[in-house]
Amino acid sequence: MSIVDLIIKKRQGQALAADEIAAFVKGVCDGSWKDYQIAAMLMAMFIRGLDPVETTGLTLAMAHSGDLFDLSRIPGIKVDKHSTGGVADTTTLILLPLVAACGAPVVKISGRGLGFTGGTVDKLESIPGFKVHLSAKEAIDLVMQSQAVILSQSDNLTPADKKLYALRDVTGTIDNIPLIAASIMSKKIAAGADAIVLDVKCGSGAFMQDLESARKLAQTMVDIGRLAGRKVVSVISGMSQPLGMNVGNALEVIEAIEVLKGNALGDLLEVTLVLGSQMLILAGLAENPTSARRLLQNKLQSGAGLQKFREIIINQGGDPRIIDDYQLLPQPACRGTLKASTSGFITAMDTAAIGRAFVEAGGGRKAKEDPIDYAAGFIFKHRLGDYIGAGDEIAAILAATEEKVRLAHSLLDQAIQIGNKAPKPEPVIIAVVQ
Amino acid sequence: MSIVDLIIKKRQGQALAADEIAAFVKGVCDGSWKDYQIAAMLMAMFIRGLDPVETTGLTLAMAHSGDLFDLSRIPGIKVDKHSTGGVADTTTLILLPLVAACGAPVVKISGRGLGFTGGTVDKLESIPGFKVHLSAKEAIDLVMQSQAVILSQSDNLTPADKKLYALRDVTGTIDNIPLIAASIMSKKIAAGADAIVLDVKCGSGAFMQDLESARKLAQTMVDIGRLAGRKVVSVISGMSQPLGMNVGNALEVIEAIEVLKGNALGDLLEVTLVLGSQMLILAGLAENPTSARRLLQNKLQSGAGLQKFREIIINQGGDPRIIDDYQLLPQPACRGTLKASTSGFITAMDTAAIGRAFVEAGGGRKAKEDPIDYAAGFIFKHRLGDYIGAGDEIAAILAATEEKVRLAHSLLDQAIQIGNKAPKPEPVIIAVVQ
Repeated sequence: MSIVDLIIKKRQGQALAADEIAAFVKGVCDGSWKDYQIAAMLMAMFIRGLDPVETTGLTLAMAHSGDLFDLSRIPGIKVDKHSTGGVADTTTLILLPLVAACGAPVVKISGRGLGFTGGTVDKLESIPGFKVHLSAKEAIDLVMQSQAVILSQSDNLTPADKKLYALRDVTGTIDNIPLIAASIMSKKIAAGADAIVLDVKCGSGAFMQDLESARKLAQTMVDIGRLAGRKVVSVISGMSQPLGMNVGNALEVIEAIEVLKGNALGDLLEVTLVLGSQMLILAGLAENPTSARRLLQNKLQSGAGLQKFREIIINQGGDPRIIDDYQLLPQPACRGTLKASTSGFITAMDTAAIGRAFVEAGGGRKAKEDPIDYAAGFIFKHRLGDYIGAGDEIAAILAATEEKVRLAHSLLDQAIQIGNKAPKPEPVIIAVVQ
Repeated sequence: MSIVDLIIKKRQGQALAADEIAAFVKGVCDGSWKDYQIAAMLMAMFIRGLDPVETTGLTLAMAHSGDLFDLSRIPGIKVDKHSTGGVADTTTLILLPLVAACGAPVVKISGRGLGFTGGTVDKLESIPGFKVHLSAKEAIDLVMQSQAVILSQSDNLTPADKKLYALRDVTGTIDNIPLIAASIMSKKIAAGADAIVLDVKCGSGAFMQDLESARKLAQTMVDIGRLAGRKVVSVISGMSQPLGMNVGNALEVIEAIEVLKGNALGDLLEVTLVLGSQMLILAGLAENPTSARRLLQNKLQSGAGLQKFREIIINQGGDPRIIDDYQLLPQPACRGTLKASTSGFITAMDTAAIGRAFVEAGGGRKAKEDPIDYAAGFIFKHRLGDYIGAGDEIAAILAATEEKVRLAHSLLDQAIQIGNKAPKPEPVIIAVVQ
């Protein structure tokens, strides 16, 4: 079938066969489909939709468009975790050491932050010396030795997804559940794990702002997993406020260490334990969420999790002394304080706006090539529903210049609402879809 | 609104405002919209549809994207005619002299043939010396003198339509009624006439193969005319067989002359009279179809129509002696005959297939730059519903080589079906929409 005939088939709402989707992805990579033809197909896919079989076909074709991470040398069931992106979500840095300490091998391929969401690779690079660029062999050797490694995505992982994402970004075809699901799952499948736990964020600081969309995305990715022969569980978690108390690269490393030291509880730990439990169950190391959670809490209380994080830092060339001396992490030149202008309950935290304020503070990126300030960020003192008095500190603001502090202050101030009525408390774990 | 936001607005099925459509067309022309963004917008427009106001906005923006033909120097109501394209449809060559002989000024901008449909410019260029490339001033001077001129489209008429059509052709977004209507009407509006009669073809040799689509297209163009302040009438005519008996460039010039000489009747003359009547009514030269038809028939019978055709040929540098001696037109080197393999009624003539056979005979083009053979073509001896005996001649085949004759013969043979039951007769004029 010709390129134009394939576009017309999708335009008319017909389902594309697996070989037709494979021809499309091949054409995206080898240039035989022109950008305008890819754009027309993406718009037709967006409006007409893709059924689960088509979505899986697209996922697999994109997964196989570049390098595949071969984890077969590692014994046991390899588990992976992915979050759809949030603010103050540093679960990976806590989860990975805890799960690895329980014996589950994890090769975690992470990305950089863009827009209002942070990236694990940026956080780790705030640790002096930490290397995220590893060869496949180096990464697998480290997992064989320590059960855990975190590395940045290679240039040739899912090139079809990179190309399609770049075109979607400039043609108004981003926010479509099958296309988002295929993009995420293609990278996870290329990354080679046998089992994947997905954290689908829902709320003001997530791509999926309503529960219905989050459920659809969660279910779509579980369906892809089933059809592609991978075990997949999706956890839907709340992102109507920052997950942790710290927003920032070095600041989130500190918060992760505080959790591993047993000094910090709350939503961040809760999400970590729920995701970690699902990973242990998929890895065959626990039978149910209760026993899995007990295993993880043991590793937390015994200090084995913190010890594993230290081991990961050392393995990847980082300075492990930062665990005991946070002053060895990048420090901000300027500080400010966001204070409550009135007393009342914190009724809303526009989390995407907080993420955008973080970009203005210097910690995040507007464009892929932007440099970032590892020290910049916010330390929140309160959470949604807290009652605060006028003049109470809501957050500390850290940045390189007074100007950036002022700009971030103004944006943060607008992101937080104080009212007379306590908001309805929302559970941070909304659903588990499998 | 940004480019991406405009695409998303249409993607979501919202109507675009006139200034938003104008921004799109401007971006198409100045390059600020990339081809992939235009393609995504076209697909969104195709699937989500354009309402009459949007379609008119698109038409007017495209009409104003290049040169506008200013006919204000010509007194009276200037009428124009356009056909959506058919096979053996040489109405323009008959209509124009007759209508001009009645006193209606017509500046007819015509195109070349492509694919299975012929083009008036090609037919005229088969007349030795005939010039279709005229400046606006030359064309208007000729109309002031003789009421009629036929010229080929200037390079800078509706450049936005050219660009959009080229992209639609390669992105599976051709066969959409609002986009087709806007493309046709933009060229007619840029061509400057006050009133336009459209011949919407319907049947096996037309873009609109079913009556419902033809009616929609006809109505859409009438609506555009109303909203754009031009008088528009659409005639829906049948194209389930070649309109005339001759398919070819020189061959259709001959058939037009035979009609003007009063030697040929039938569907070609009927469509000409109906279209011409509507033109005279719109031009204010007749009150109703009956009186308009009488006027046209008078010009036919008196020879004034033929005389006007002679005048047009002389005006535009052609050799008028061809009217009396068809041997002065290009002659084919080879001839063949399609004979009936069995006796029976002609039950179907796949007119698009006849058009494609004509391309293979050398008379038409597959690509815009292909050279054509003015002498090649077919002379049909029978029409749909005729009873023929085995071995009877169905058509003469004219081409430059025996090979082309053979190829065209084989394709023509497949295009014509003979059966035992006479087909239901179909009127050539199906509807008038205004």
